[in-house]
Amino acid sequence: MQNIKIIKIGGNVVNDTTVLHAFLKDFANLESPKILIHGGGVLATTLAEKLAIKQTIIDGRRITDAATLDIATMVYAGSINKNIVATLQAMDCNAVGLSGADGNLILGHKRVSSPIDYGFVGDIDTVNTNFLQILIENGFLPIVCPIIHDGTGQLLNTNADTIASEIAVSLSKIYNVDLLFCFEKLGVLQDVNDENSIIENLDFELFGNLKSKKLIANGMIPKLHNGFLALEKGVQSVSICHAKNINHQNNFIGTKLSL
Amino acid sequence: MQNIKIIKIGGNVVNDTTVLHAFLKDFANLESPKILIHGGGVLATTLAEKLAIKQTIIDGRRITDAATLDIATMVYAGSINKNIVATLQAMDCNAVGLSGADGNLILGHKRVSSPIDYGFVGDIDTVNTNFLQILIENGFLPIVCPIIHDGTGQLLNTNADTIASEIAVSLSKIYNVDLLFCFEKLGVLQDVNDENSIIENLDFELFGNLKSKKLIANGMIPKLHNGFLALEKGVQSVSICHAKNINHQNNFIGTKLSL
Repeated sequence: MQNIKIIKIGGNVVNDTTVLHAFLKDFANLESPKILIHGGGVLATTLAEKLAIKQTIIDGRRITDAATLDIATMVYAGSINKNIVATLQAMDCNAVGLSGADGNLILGHKRVSSPIDYGFVGDIDTVNTNFLQILIENGFLPIVCPIIHDGTGQLLNTNADTIASEIAVSLSKIYNVDLLFCFEKLGVLQDVNDENSIIENLDFELFGNLKSKKLIANGMIPKLHNGFLALEKGVQSVSICHAKNINHQNNFIGTKLSL
Repeated sequence: MQNIKIIKIGGNVVNDTTVLHAFLKDFANLESPKILIHGGGVLATTLAEKLAIKQTIIDGRRITDAATLDIATMVYAGSINKNIVATLQAMDCNAVGLSGADGNLILGHKRVSSPIDYGFVGDIDTVNTNFLQILIENGFLPIVCPIIHDGTGQLLNTNADTIASEIAVSLSKIYNVDLLFCFEKLGVLQDVNDENSIIENLDFELFGNLKSKKLIANGMIPKLHNGFLALEKGVQSVSICHAKNINHQNNFIGTKLSL
């Protein structure tokens, strides 16, 4: 099977034009087919503030009402996605920007509203691997934003880590998939106060231990869960690293997951 | 050669959810491969107003500064494009939303700033027909928004009529192309005050006569110029009709252009 790299970047990369440009240069230079999944960052929140659209937070989680979804669609699928695509085109990468509605790429359903109704937030049902395969085999690089659809005409906002993981699992049936989550640290840290205390190999047992001792930060837990799930379901490798370290030459700095 | 329909809708369709939905239903029911090109409508202007982004008009034409371009990208490539795609997906049309940056679909350059600098407005150099052909042959329907790129990472705003015409001309080398411009009237009218005075066949000579007598409205002239140019360059048929009349059964209501 052919290799493919699936790389997810979050707000920390997307928010900073210089950081994003440097990342995209490394991404463009990566060999083998590749897919980029990008998150949203603060741009959507900034736009909501400017438009005085009130953001409702329940139990620390944002509720996606219709106005907030429209902002997410404009910012993620419009501004961020198309600027990334244009930048990659300038680097001779034939990027194609996609939401989950395009080519029925990611079909999902509105999250069941119990006990809290999170609004227009989607859980993923299927990934159209055939569409991705057609693009990849013809030399195109899919650039995916975190907006999916439900098949009845409704767009839905979805977590970009989950999208990366689901795409990786779907493609693992036809490719050797390397899934890479980029974030603002060098890797999963043994000691959050020591930037260099990278855990090079994190297996599921160690993850359980660190989690029970509350040594893994809250935001990291769903990312790692997504990662372990992807490994279990057939993804060849899952790693977590800084966005500046994706283009390593046999000298990987970051955390590799193993079961 | 296979037939393909290229249909352009403007603001009057995009602005009204009910009209847009009815149009998309007719579009979904059209046989043969098809491509939709949509304009922007008032949504971008409304968003600019809400964000208090000043719109500069010189000689009746809007200047696209960086903030205005970002709004156009968000509204056209984000909100409008993805909602159209999701609606078509619900109608069993495998739509793929595209800007001109995606897959290097439409490469252009910033309009030469003489005498007026219109800002980030693009003139088209090339259309990637190969990309469109790959999508069409695999059963996908391209839905194109009026944002192109210049190959150096810069997005540019472009007239949707021109995009429709250029895509039609490019594809006429490999398909029999029917190009249809939809607008708010039933066709080109002999008498602007009589909605039923449709000119069924408009040739270039009659166009010249009507133009010299100032019987054709200003906004219509560039649309017709685009249409005649497309015919000259090999497009099989060019018509202008109301958005509600695209799915005619041998009973076309509208204006057909001829050379």
